[in-house]
Amino acid sequence: MKQRKGAKRKMDKYCFGVDLGGTTVKMGLFTVTGDLLDKWEIPTRTENHGEHILGDIADSIQAKMSEKQLTEDNVTGVGIGVPGPVVKESIVQQCVNLGWGTVNVAKTLSELTHLPVKAANDANVAALGEQWQGGGKGYDSLIMMTLGTGVGGGIISEGEIVSGANGAAGEIGHMVIVDPADITGICGCGHIGCLEQAASATGLVNMTRKLLAETDESSSLRGMDPMTAKDILDAAKAGDDLAVRAADKMMMYLGHAAAYLACAMNPDIFVIGGGVSRAGSYLTEGIQKHYREIVFHASTETPFVLATLGNDAGIIGAAKLVCDIVDE
Amino acid sequence: MKQRKGAKRKMDKYCFGVDLGGTTVKMGLFTVTGDLLDKWEIPTRTENHGEHILGDIADSIQAKMSEKQLTEDNVTGVGIGVPGPVVKESIVQQCVNLGWGTVNVAKTLSELTHLPVKAANDANVAALGEQWQGGGKGYDSLIMMTLGTGVGGGIISEGEIVSGANGAAGEIGHMVIVDPADITGICGCGHIGCLEQAASATGLVNMTRKLLAETDESSSLRGMDPMTAKDILDAAKAGDDLAVRAADKMMMYLGHAAAYLACAMNPDIFVIGGGVSRAGSYLTEGIQKHYREIVFHASTETPFVLATLGNDAGIIGAAKLVCDIVDE
Repeated sequence: MKQRKGAKRKMDKYCFGVDLGGTTVKMGLFTVTGDLLDKWEIPTRTENHGEHILGDIADSIQAKMSEKQLTEDNVTGVGIGVPGPVVKESIVQQCVNLGWGTVNVAKTLSELTHLPVKAANDANVAALGEQWQGGGKGYDSLIMMTLGTGVGGGIISEGEIVSGANGAAGEIGHMVIVDPADITGICGCGHIGCLEQAASATGLVNMTRKLLAETDESSSLRGMDPMTAKDILDAAKAGDDLAVRAADKMMMYLGHAAAYLACAMNPDIFVIGGGVSRAGSYLTEGIQKHYREIVFHASTETPFVLATLGNDAGIIGAAKLVCDIVDE
Repeated sequence: MKQRKGAKRKMDKYCFGVDLGGTTVKMGLFTVTGDLLDKWEIPTRTENHGEHILGDIADSIQAKMSEKQLTEDNVTGVGIGVPGPVVKESIVQQCVNLGWGTVNVAKTLSELTHLPVKAANDANVAALGEQWQGGGKGYDSLIMMTLGTGVGGGIISEGEIVSGANGAAGEIGHMVIVDPADITGICGCGHIGCLEQAASATGLVNMTRKLLAETDESSSLRGMDPMTAKDILDAAKAGDDLAVRAADKMMMYLGHAAAYLACAMNPDIFVIGGGVSRAGSYLTEGIQKHYREIVFHASTETPFVLATLGNDAGIIGAAKLVCDIVDE
């Protein structure tokens, strides 16, 4: 990674955070203390195995630097979250969504931008963002559970991402903990009974459809098609018995998974994010209730909070990766 | 913590590792590169709420320094593992075995020895020892499972102990994962179905007695009293069907717990220690078989190895805490 020798520390006031997704690249310009000055998006060009992606990002960064009259000496670096496992803050082995095989993201983007670059997995980067400026602000260690189409996660220990041997840490959605009675099929990973089969938006819908099929019980959800996780959680909040049972199962599995992780890591806080987390305190309180049923006593009081950064978590966490890079 | 200003780095060649137990204090003098030069023990005086313990340790360190003609400038510091949760590498809230309430171990021992001191939980320190010089040598991140009277653990991420919000990380024995059919009573922590109820030495014996009581099946273990975990594992290795089933349950719960942790942390390696680990590769292979049944594909190849340091893991890991302290 290129180091800009001789640059003065006091001149380094800005950094870039990049959240590389399969459709768009979200980008942000930040002060090194975390103020978001500007954000924008460019399309992700996945054709030809995604060969244009990093060049497009570099061009966009350089255009923004020209626009804002920034030089390399004003910028500590570029942090980037990518949708795949990342090792050594640099290399992805495979990003199916981008068409990539093995790509040394940090090295390549650094050569293109002449700036230091650090890369990390996008879910882990979002957790870092929540720890820096979001629901986990002020805490050194947190576990984030992201409830969307799947269940993702990110673990921050002592302010740093736990990335794991193969960059695959944080895959809490694939803890196989679902009771046989609640199983609805095979997970995309090939296993049966993964947490995300019961606790993702999709999983909640599937589990609810199974409950509906098993009884004749009246429910506001009966016959609803399409049915979303929001429909189910809204019905549960309104007191629909079957919806309450489905939501409770989801929250139980999340709470018990959180308890397993707390026995091992004893985090300062759990942060719940993703689209499903719009259900709010109904969700965090339900998860925490089940968590407390089984967690080791030292972690009983660990708070559960909602993520607060929404779609900006990725660019904010990415900026955090490089905000404190100091020149040689 | 006292810093010795002006001392030259090249003079710092030694450090002390202390493993503070309820009966004895194990102590070691090390080079900073990890060679054990001398080890000895002193009794742990727990009377009067353990008020003499840290003074005794300081006296013993100072006697050893005189004997070896070491000065404060030759010693980087003292690392100490204590049998309780430790926060900020210094403070224990309670050590029942020692009679202690809240004690600032590092500060107190540093004042007594005029040396930098870092403290950590003893199980976590043993994991650090195995990472530095034992079964996990050469790996940055590991999860250690210690199978003794209970099931303990220690987690090392990027070469550092994960100590947790309240110093209670690594309590993997209290993951509540045992099936109702295998439950033998209430865990010491108050919950029912903790991993250690099925996978500690005591747990294995209880689970085996339950199996014996439930059938008339012939077994070399029937009527054996006392019966130890070693008896059961030896019988299993010899092909006793009931012993095989009991051992397999133990290894299944350990393997599944390991898989949950690997989804979250994706460690480089698992290290299995404690008295039960004398069962050797029968145990590691059995745990790994069950681990692979459910673990996320990125962690399928994670190795399981035996701890190699035995009772020295504590002093070695404690020395590691302070071996690289550099003078101001």
